[in-house]
Amino acid sequence: MKKLEHIGIAVRDLEASNTLYKKLLGTASYKTEEVISEGVKTSFFRMGDSKIELLQALDKNSPIAQFLEKRGEGVHHIAFAVDDIKVEVERLKSEGFTVLNEEPKRGADNKLVVFLHPKSSGGVLVELCQDIP
Amino acid sequence: MKKLEHIGIAVRDLEASNTLYKKLLGTASYKTEEVISEGVKTSFFRMGDSKIELLQALDKNSPIAQFLEKRGEGVHHIAFAVDDIKVEVERLKSEGFTVLNEEPKRGADNKLVVFLHPKSSGGVLVELCQDIP
Repeated sequence: MKKLEHIGIAVRDLEASNTLYKKLLGTASYKTEEVISEGVKTSFFRMGDSKIELLQALDKNSPIAQFLEKRGEGVHHIAFAVDDIKVEVERLKSEGFTVLNEEPKRGADNKLVVFLHPKSSGGVLVELCQDIP
Repeated sequence: MKKLEHIGIAVRDLEASNTLYKKLLGTASYKTEEVISEGVKTSFFRMGDSKIELLQALDKNSPIAQFLEKRGEGVHHIAFAVDDIKVEVERLKSEGFTVLNEEPKRGADNKLVVFLHPKSSGGVLVELCQDIP
């Protein structure tokens, strides 16, 4: 893992949360993006070398809708930047981690992403992400 | 807020988790520190410009013990570096955030820290931290 790329936070209302997090962080969201395949609308804030990503569900089948129902608003996942996601996935599998999607999929912010099962990573939903050139 | 200083993760067994996170992050913990006043033993990993802080409860009255009982292992708080914690606390209070400890207290890693109530910050326990010179 190269660095902490972002923290993903589940929110009920992206517009209201954009206002709240602007006040909290002292900086405004610099982009909003829908990821239809994941059923989410996202918003990004720069924070030093990392980002905060807010995630609102687009429909009730979205993993974010399920998370909100179970846990309420809060931290949903943490994401690490990697240089080569396939190499990193193989390394983590050999260390005993469980991968949720074997094949990297296209996430927000022009990234290829793979998630690790929280049961294998200390209760934390971990995302690996690699920039798409 | 200047940057994401660290992510605090509640764990049941610091030694076992040090091994797990070393495998996950590809880097070893660089220090362990007890914070008696908070009832925690902590372990730090560098991750780019930020850190991962693992937190194990020292006794059953520790906030970490209570968190583990309620939620299990996982992300406990996110911490932002600030230049002047008193100025930032005043700014956040004026924006409507609720501060858990008005007077900055000494946390791990040579920092003065203040926590915001998750009810005022979108379900996220937010820590502000300023280096002690």
